[in-house]
Amino acid sequence: MITLNIRLPGRSYPIQIGDGILERALPELFCGRPAKKAAVVSDETVWSLHGARLEAALRGHGVDFAATILPAGEASKSLNAFERLLRAFARQGLHRNDPVIAFGGGVVGDLAGFAASAFMRGVPFAQIPTTLLAQVDSSVGGKVAVNLPEGKNLVGSFYQPALVIADTGLLASLPRRELNAGLAEVVKYAAIGCDGLLPLLETKAGETPGPDRLARIVELCCVCKAGYVERDERDTGDRMMLNFGHTFGHAVEKYFQFERYNHGEAVAIGMALAARAGLLLGLTPRETLTQITDLLDAAGISDAAPCSPTELIPLMLGDKKSGEGELTLILLRAFGAPFAHKIRPERLLALFADADMRERVKV
Amino acid sequence: MITLNIRLPGRSYPIQIGDGILERALPELFCGRPAKKAAVVSDETVWSLHGARLEAALRGHGVDFAATILPAGEASKSLNAFERLLRAFARQGLHRNDPVIAFGGGVVGDLAGFAASAFMRGVPFAQIPTTLLAQVDSSVGGKVAVNLPEGKNLVGSFYQPALVIADTGLLASLPRRELNAGLAEVVKYAAIGCDGLLPLLETKAGETPGPDRLARIVELCCVCKAGYVERDERDTGDRMMLNFGHTFGHAVEKYFQFERYNHGEAVAIGMALAARAGLLLGLTPRETLTQITDLLDAAGISDAAPCSPTELIPLMLGDKKSGEGELTLILLRAFGAPFAHKIRPERLLALFADADMRERVKV
Repeated sequence: MITLNIRLPGRSYPIQIGDGILERALPELFCGRPAKKAAVVSDETVWSLHGARLEAALRGHGVDFAATILPAGEASKSLNAFERLLRAFARQGLHRNDPVIAFGGGVVGDLAGFAASAFMRGVPFAQIPTTLLAQVDSSVGGKVAVNLPEGKNLVGSFYQPALVIADTGLLASLPRRELNAGLAEVVKYAAIGCDGLLPLLETKAGETPGPDRLARIVELCCVCKAGYVERDERDTGDRMMLNFGHTFGHAVEKYFQFERYNHGEAVAIGMALAARAGLLLGLTPRETLTQITDLLDAAGISDAAPCSPTELIPLMLGDKKSGEGELTLILLRAFGAPFAHKIRPERLLALFADADMRERVKV
Repeated sequence: MITLNIRLPGRSYPIQIGDGILERALPELFCGRPAKKAAVVSDETVWSLHGARLEAALRGHGVDFAATILPAGEASKSLNAFERLLRAFARQGLHRNDPVIAFGGGVVGDLAGFAASAFMRGVPFAQIPTTLLAQVDSSVGGKVAVNLPEGKNLVGSFYQPALVIADTGLLASLPRRELNAGLAEVVKYAAIGCDGLLPLLETKAGETPGPDRLARIVELCCVCKAGYVERDERDTGDRMMLNFGHTFGHAVEKYFQFERYNHGEAVAIGMALAARAGLLLGLTPRETLTQITDLLDAAGISDAAPCSPTELIPLMLGDKKSGEGELTLILLRAFGAPFAHKIRPERLLALFADADMRERVKV
């Protein structure tokens, strides 16, 4: 079991990483508490696969808990589900010091985290991410949120967990598509300069990385993300680099009404588009674009843009990262070297429209 | 215009207090901003009385704003209204640096503040309280929340405003009942030891304090509250003293389904009950109880318990302040000297039941 400590002003919390560590890591959450009560939040898929294991672990420690099991999928990241959780916590008689445990992927973690941050103005919160995407990304850093019909993640807070347990053994049941979504975020970490990831991404075609290799990947990504979060918890500067591929990616998700692509798939497409935008602006070398698409290809992840980038740009303006009529794109000056670039949407639109036309003339 | 500065770790914000200061104090909110955009939240009563004045002030500073006007009353402090505000902010295209302005009483401030804290994980927030209760209490300190059917203020956050404007001129239109609700909180500040308030509370029967006297009252209450908030922002210790009268008061509101009594009236009843509880426990002298009821009587505020205290105690257990099966009551060892006292609900119940029986036997 590897322990990483995230140090923030006034608080610090551990991320426990390893294969099969759930039972060993859980007791920490209840250390020194007289009454052991908790609220568990999960989704139907995760609960049918792993619910019995978490139940047994909690019972083994004498924890009195109630579980709210939501339908799997992005639709549960809503204010409706937020209300459902809060009322369940109240009816259960959850108190200020009793933790909420999120047991699932990013949707469950984001929703349960926001509910934990708001219930009685904040109760302790533990993340047990069950997808690679959540283990490397959403469970670390304290960004929790739900969606509005008007846009993704528009309502939420910065709320750090008390504990994160990343048990890579839980990933064995993950469908290949979900694993790939996580690997797309891992490619992002490599692209923005996280050390040591490239050799771990080299696998034979079709091969799935095992739990030990995944534990090492999760560790390196969390170390990288922890650094960004410690430097910029509130996401006003440096932390924006983690957004590489996300501005285009969110627009892709929105364009297809969050149905066709999952978050990781959209980020893969978004990274290729951001690299292409950098290329068109003369700021990103062609070999950097190639390196990204090669890494995604090797992991079996498609980065083919499913629509013209010009259709995505208007959808990017409602994004939280867009200020005063300008977009902030994260671009690469080389593989591993990200920077923020402000651009007016009309300029970006013209750039892609022009490139599209040249493509068509060539054909 | 009096300016108080609330100093918290990493942040500091001003409270501007005075008669007719709205127009003078408002520009500070938009200092140094290139685009001037804001979302205004108010209720139908306040907006019909003072909306034109705020509109003119905002227009005068070239601010592009949209107003959401909610029905007046506690029913608007709901997750439904929270969602309505968030969607309005999104449709208006509010950005991360554009402020939300709460223009109303405690309901509007608590709701709009929680929405501001959650929209895009936090946008700036200004309070323009229009009731005495909100000026002396809810607009200062950063506690924002909405109610659940299961209990009051169960969902919210700690979110400090960027600016508070307490224009006591706005209080001239306040119905006497609303003014009295505020005066009940002022009596609370005196009872927990805020200096200088007693002479300001001495008025001839039926007389309403004018805007200048009110400005001085608001100033002293805010100084007192600021001290508590600076020492204990997250309400885990000393700040609990501000809760004098509130544990019983919340139960009174709940008992009558938030319909019969407003918050201040319930707090008045709650203070008398807390003083009586202290008396029954042998911890509060009888003259302290008398001093509180005399002050409330002089302000024309009833403190007569509308039901047996034994009926209220079960309703106190869902309160955020109750931990692990115990209630934390704020009691007075003398007028001006509050302390926290933990008690098991069964013990409190027995105490009041016993006293009730003795009363009946006497009759």
